[in-house]
Amino acid sequence: MNGAESLLRTLAGAGVEVCFANPGTTEMPLVQALEGVGAIRPVLGTFEGVCSGAADGYARMLGRPALTLFHLGPGFANAISNLHNARRARSPVVNLVGDHATWHRDADAPLASDIVSLARPVSCWVRSSVSSGQLAADGAQAVAAACSAPGGIATLIVPADAQWGEASGPAPAVPPRAPRPVSADHVDEVAAALRVSRSGALCLGAAGLSVRGQWAAARIAARTGCKVLGEVFPARMERGAGLPRIDRMPYFPERVSAVLGGADLLVLAGATEPVSFFGYPGVPSRLTPDGCNLATLAEPGDDVEAALLALADALDAPAASAALAFPAKTPVAPEGKLTPEAVGAVLALLQPEGAIIVDEAGTTGSAYFYRATASPPHTLLTLTGGSLGMGPAAATGAALACPGRVVIDFQGDGSALYTLQSLWTQAREQLHVVTLVCANRSYRILEVELARAGVAQPGPRARSLTSLSSPDVDYVSLAKGFGVPGQKVDDVATLKAALARAIAEPGPHLLHLAL
Amino acid sequence: MNGAESLLRTLAGAGVEVCFANPGTTEMPLVQALEGVGAIRPVLGTFEGVCSGAADGYARMLGRPALTLFHLGPGFANAISNLHNARRARSPVVNLVGDHATWHRDADAPLASDIVSLARPVSCWVRSSVSSGQLAADGAQAVAAACSAPGGIATLIVPADAQWGEASGPAPAVPPRAPRPVSADHVDEVAAALRVSRSGALCLGAAGLSVRGQWAAARIAARTGCKVLGEVFPARMERGAGLPRIDRMPYFPERVSAVLGGADLLVLAGATEPVSFFGYPGVPSRLTPDGCNLATLAEPGDDVEAALLALADALDAPAASAALAFPAKTPVAPEGKLTPEAVGAVLALLQPEGAIIVDEAGTTGSAYFYRATASPPHTLLTLTGGSLGMGPAAATGAALACPGRVVIDFQGDGSALYTLQSLWTQAREQLHVVTLVCANRSYRILEVELARAGVAQPGPRARSLTSLSSPDVDYVSLAKGFGVPGQKVDDVATLKAALARAIAEPGPHLLHLAL
Repeated sequence: MNGAESLLRTLAGAGVEVCFANPGTTEMPLVQALEGVGAIRPVLGTFEGVCSGAADGYARMLGRPALTLFHLGPGFANAISNLHNARRARSPVVNLVGDHATWHRDADAPLASDIVSLARPVSCWVRSSVSSGQLAADGAQAVAAACSAPGGIATLIVPADAQWGEASGPAPAVPPRAPRPVSADHVDEVAAALRVSRSGALCLGAAGLSVRGQWAAARIAARTGCKVLGEVFPARMERGAGLPRIDRMPYFPERVSAVLGGADLLVLAGATEPVSFFGYPGVPSRLTPDGCNLATLAEPGDDVEAALLALADALDAPAASAALAFPAKTPVAPEGKLTPEAVGAVLALLQPEGAIIVDEAGTTGSAYFYRATASPPHTLLTLTGGSLGMGPAAATGAALACPGRVVIDFQGDGSALYTLQSLWTQAREQLHVVTLVCANRSYRILEVELARAGVAQPGPRARSLTSLSSPDVDYVSLAKGFGVPGQKVDDVATLKAALARAIAEPGPHLLHLAL
Repeated sequence: MNGAESLLRTLAGAGVEVCFANPGTTEMPLVQALEGVGAIRPVLGTFEGVCSGAADGYARMLGRPALTLFHLGPGFANAISNLHNARRARSPVVNLVGDHATWHRDADAPLASDIVSLARPVSCWVRSSVSSGQLAADGAQAVAAACSAPGGIATLIVPADAQWGEASGPAPAVPPRAPRPVSADHVDEVAAALRVSRSGALCLGAAGLSVRGQWAAARIAARTGCKVLGEVFPARMERGAGLPRIDRMPYFPERVSAVLGGADLLVLAGATEPVSFFGYPGVPSRLTPDGCNLATLAEPGDDVEAALLALADALDAPAASAALAFPAKTPVAPEGKLTPEAVGAVLALLQPEGAIIVDEAGTTGSAYFYRATASPPHTLLTLTGGSLGMGPAAATGAALACPGRVVIDFQGDGSALYTLQSLWTQAREQLHVVTLVCANRSYRILEVELARAGVAQPGPRARSLTSLSSPDVDYVSLAKGFGVPGQKVDDVATLKAALARAIAEPGPHLLHLAL
């Protein structure tokens, strides 16, 4: 057995089932070893950002380690942007990055570069393997690092000679670090603070946004009157009619201040302190209001769910009940012109039970979130790290993780262009992904930001950098090029019919929404 | 004047004329400042790899500093792959990377990351600016670092508050380090070694591949009988009928060994010692044959051209003459089936004088190089760093640098997919770029490498990672999506007609060559 096979057998034994790959020459022994190690299915992406974003989406849905395979520093570099989102989502991802044979590194061949320096900013664990005999043990450590609470990116650099050299066999799995339990005393302290608070707020993140976490939070709110908010960009949030009435932290800092204004206590459960997404002149970074006490019930690496349940019980909170949930009211069915509001309403109206909604719709998406409270229960994945191009790729990985569920990628047009190669993988794997490209033909958020900075009428040069017109991008043709059927949609009636059809038919579809 | 304006005025004063940009919120003061600083023209890329590759192509053609603008760590990360090629090409590129306001960094907002760690592997100079007052001086230093011989990547990280804060004005340009002169004594030493060599070879790189450098090398060969070879992947090489008969170092190590076999002296002029592109079992990294002396006439940062001229004169070499040049023989005009050989021959036949050929055609391109010796004088840009996706982007930058010349991007299909968003920029700027996508529907080089490793019949999993079929990519539709007219070509006659038309018509075109 060579090092490559010993590594893949180790990873398979630790629960790895899919490898999102864009390999090159230095990874050929690993590619060959995939033939023999049947438990790991290779999935090709034609750009590395597709692979890393797919790994993120897959890991968010399954909580199991997602594996990638990249070609030296430059190949890995293309994956970094979506790994940044995965890092912020705390997704368990293991990257294998091929490298030159150890004895070839001194030659400084054209593709050589400092992979460790590239990997550190997105990785909680980085190792450059030194020998074929060590590779299996390194792989076991990588999975343990990625899966240790709260989850993270482990990057294992695999020299070619460590792949092709002899190895004795796979290594046993290494147990990951479990979520840290939160002590009863600490729960009691937070309960005491909530009891005396007149205007409290509870912010949920990480496992706090699971169905069980949300129900515990809703019970706490029913008992104490505190507000409950999800973090602004949750990695994964279960939502819809019948689930607890939980709002989300707003995006702009002045909106956060409005929501938290007057609060005397902010309890964090799996969330970090709310901060401004960007620094603006005269606006503080940290958005906890003056005079508001901050209490951390559980950090993301703690057992957030158990802590919330314990807190609800410590407060003698009432049992979960339908009264605490979003009602299953009939959602609005708009007509006429295709506006962001109408698109959000149609999506909320038509999305089926169990849908996975990947939201990278940017400014167009804001109306959707509130509409979807009346939709059947579903899963929402959002842009955790702010790095554009998450949507098409994460949707691909989510669909591979959950073959029985429809994935809807609610996608901005500017952000779509960073990883649109995802459509090819969706076509090859015949994944049931519906991509809704919200084509407002601009980086609209930048126009909003310029206006916020007092530039109401940007000049032609600034406009040339925020506009996506001249020429308009034709997403239906792009989809066709990648083997995905598409349709351009100009009004609400057409959108309803086209979206219903795309949801009903297996395989990928793309709708170009001309906003 | 704010920091952003002081920086851009400094860069304009140092010769910067174009900014290849994909900005975000943290770069809005720089975007606004571009309105006022008329000397720098912004060019939008819808993916950062387009911008960095375009900067590389632009810098290779003009030798002047190319400017980019990126959005924090994740935006910069998408640029790294093509910056790796630019680093290997020693292209003078200045990256501006926006960052959070200095006082906002502690908040660890979603887009925060370690930009310095990402930048170091591709940069010869990295600085994170600390204040608006310092920004102009930092910019002057960045240009000097990028333009110092032999050229490199300078990355200036620009916090938002350094952009919007007050500054006193632009900073004076800082003179870059000029190429180091090579001493007459050293030239005489190399001349003496060449005089006694029975079987010498001279390898040219960097400025040694300029027209003047090549002529000096041809004179040296005429006097000493040594072989003259360009480095395997030159950043820029002037070629064609009437230019010196100079070959190129082969790609595979056994071919290099064959070419250099029996040499007793290898003289390097702007080139580094030939090494194997990848490490293979049993193959040495460094390909200088045993018993062959290595002499460095000039390093890439030296004045290579002057050293070659001095060496020719020291050897009393004959004057340049047509006898040393490639003859202007009538090139072959093939017929029939579309093969790699036929494609190379048609391109060599039809490319006009002054064409800029960007060669990222991989396995399909090998026949072209030898055919093009009979083509009218032209410029060749190659894949210096081995990082895929250089072609469409570098062609875009080369076309912006040289509006009067036709740019032909001779492009592999797999590599095209990494930066195909370049077509949109070509359409917006109406650049005369002809993209020839050589669609063999595979990463053919990986199939070659598997065969070299003894895997003649890869299994289905390995094939799934090297094949680009299922579905076939339709590059004509992709081009249409980005606003570029395209045509599918199935035979040589159609290729000739379509290529002639695309060369004659202004604006971008794409031909999908069904190989």
